[in-house]
Amino acid sequence: MQTLTVDLGDRSYPIHIGPGLLGRPDVWRAAVPGRQVMVVSNTTVAPLYLETVCSAFDDRRVETVVLPDGESFKTLDTLGNVFDALLRARFDRHCTLLALGGGVVGDMTGFAAACYQRGVDFVQLPTTLLAQVDSSVGGKTGVNHPLGKNMIGAFHQPRAVVIDTRTLVTLPDREFAAGLAEVIKYGLIRDLPFLDWLEANLEALLARDGAALTEAIARSCRCKAEIVGRDERESGERALLNLGHTFGHAIETGTGYGVWLHGEAVAAGTCMALDLSARLGWLDAAAVERVRRLFSRAQLPVTAPASLSAEDFLGLMAVDKKTRDGQLTLILLQGLGHGVVRRDVPSAALRATLDAFCH
Amino acid sequence: MQTLTVDLGDRSYPIHIGPGLLGRPDVWRAAVPGRQVMVVSNTTVAPLYLETVCSAFDDRRVETVVLPDGESFKTLDTLGNVFDALLRARFDRHCTLLALGGGVVGDMTGFAAACYQRGVDFVQLPTTLLAQVDSSVGGKTGVNHPLGKNMIGAFHQPRAVVIDTRTLVTLPDREFAAGLAEVIKYGLIRDLPFLDWLEANLEALLARDGAALTEAIARSCRCKAEIVGRDERESGERALLNLGHTFGHAIETGTGYGVWLHGEAVAAGTCMALDLSARLGWLDAAAVERVRRLFSRAQLPVTAPASLSAEDFLGLMAVDKKTRDGQLTLILLQGLGHGVVRRDVPSAALRATLDAFCH
Repeated sequence: MQTLTVDLGDRSYPIHIGPGLLGRPDVWRAAVPGRQVMVVSNTTVAPLYLETVCSAFDDRRVETVVLPDGESFKTLDTLGNVFDALLRARFDRHCTLLALGGGVVGDMTGFAAACYQRGVDFVQLPTTLLAQVDSSVGGKTGVNHPLGKNMIGAFHQPRAVVIDTRTLVTLPDREFAAGLAEVIKYGLIRDLPFLDWLEANLEALLARDGAALTEAIARSCRCKAEIVGRDERESGERALLNLGHTFGHAIETGTGYGVWLHGEAVAAGTCMALDLSARLGWLDAAAVERVRRLFSRAQLPVTAPASLSAEDFLGLMAVDKKTRDGQLTLILLQGLGHGVVRRDVPSAALRATLDAFCH
Repeated sequence: MQTLTVDLGDRSYPIHIGPGLLGRPDVWRAAVPGRQVMVVSNTTVAPLYLETVCSAFDDRRVETVVLPDGESFKTLDTLGNVFDALLRARFDRHCTLLALGGGVVGDMTGFAAACYQRGVDFVQLPTTLLAQVDSSVGGKTGVNHPLGKNMIGAFHQPRAVVIDTRTLVTLPDREFAAGLAEVIKYGLIRDLPFLDWLEANLEALLARDGAALTEAIARSCRCKAEIVGRDERESGERALLNLGHTFGHAIETGTGYGVWLHGEAVAAGTCMALDLSARLGWLDAAAVERVRRLFSRAQLPVTAPASLSAEDFLGLMAVDKKTRDGQLTLILLQGLGHGVVRRDVPSAALRATLDAFCH
């Protein structure tokens, strides 16, 4: 087991990483101080792990709520199910929510915890690679709106993140690949040696080798924890984590939530960001090709969906959260391993990238 | 004009109080820095003041959203209208929301601001007495749930509170009286001389005398600002502001939102809290009668609704936000002008009060 810390003063919390941790409540039960526990999961994950998690709390009141599975259910409407369950159980503001599932469960449970009685505690128990290396760490919570992804939400840090690497054994290949997109992202924005390591160890990761997984997850979480510790509310550096996300969110929203997985959209979006970086003279063609090859080896898409036009992209990207007074903010690379946040991208260059990726 | 400050470090903000302030944007426009302004109002208030407020921003992009009027619309569902308007206008996270209306508009606009793109600025422009003396100050925002009042929300402080006392001239008598319940509350929990002043000046207030209104509002806001400045998140002293509210919320939820006005429920609930205080030997009968007389003169109810039984009250109060591990927290008086927060009220005494008020 490895334990890292997200350093945020009196809101600091541990990230525990290791095999079988869901069945090791001795490691993490201290993060659940109250007597009332609500486990939030989904229809796919609940049959696999809900009983294990609930049995850790047989000395408390444990209630459960099982949500439908998928990004298309990450809505205010579905969130209502969590509030209904909390109020029917008459849980007070000293209760703790546990998010047992992927990024959708984590984001929604965290947002429910941020809002229930104006804020209660929660713990992340992520069971997908994407949630383990990215969305469960850092306190971004929320739901989607038909007109934009993650548009309604809150910053609300968990009390702990518990990553059981064994849950990845049951993860479908497509979801596993989607998580790899975010892992590769850390190499691209700030850790070139990690990119080298990923190229050398991709086969081991795809085979779900335990040691390789622990290393990749711990290295990803360390990157994220360091960035979040310095810029919790994304006033600067944290925006780097959104490499590929402005294009990617447009793909997710434009194709309908759930059609493309988040990580798939991020992979294609990252290829678009790298193409744009190359057009600005910051990246050579070999570097772009190197990354495309890595995504392809990971079974990730490297082109935009055929259904979206350049105009579609421009309209969808205009509501990105990083936009200010109509000016897009984009994350680009000035060389592999060196991400930058830019508000001054010439619209002609952006247009050229969109035209190259859209039909 | 009077200006007070809510002292919360880098989140401090001014409260401006005076006649005609909605038409004096020079006083408060500095609290709206961005270029995108969304004015949220309701169908009753919009025809009266929306144009005045919008005209203050003819150099910016101003959009409006008009919600249905009433506590029964203070729901996640109605909140969706605000998010829809913000996203259709493609407003970014540097926009500012203005809450033009009573407590419902203020609570919902504040909560929308807390959640839109994980947090944007907002300004309170309260137009009811209740919102001016209580709900617009202090950053409590949220919506109701069928099973409990204000159960879903956030702490999110406004950038400024602008109180135009002239808006009270058009306020219906019943709503004005409801606001007086919260004014009287400040006297009861911490300011006995203010209670004396209110008894001496009630007729002037009911006649909407400008000088009397400004004094009552400023004194109320000063009380609230001091308490909030010391205990923003209600870990202690701030709970005193909930005198009468645990009983009152049960009345509002039990009778259906909007049947009783919030201030009416608080007045009846305060009478119940005083009855309970007397049963515990902390208040004499003359003091209880003195307060009942003041509420009656203000046209406020002093008895519980006939439709609620003692069991109804106990069930509804069990989900109060101040409850911890099933133990109710109640605000009581140990003498007029001295509120206390108690977690140890004997259930027999509570039961006796409920039996005395229920049929």
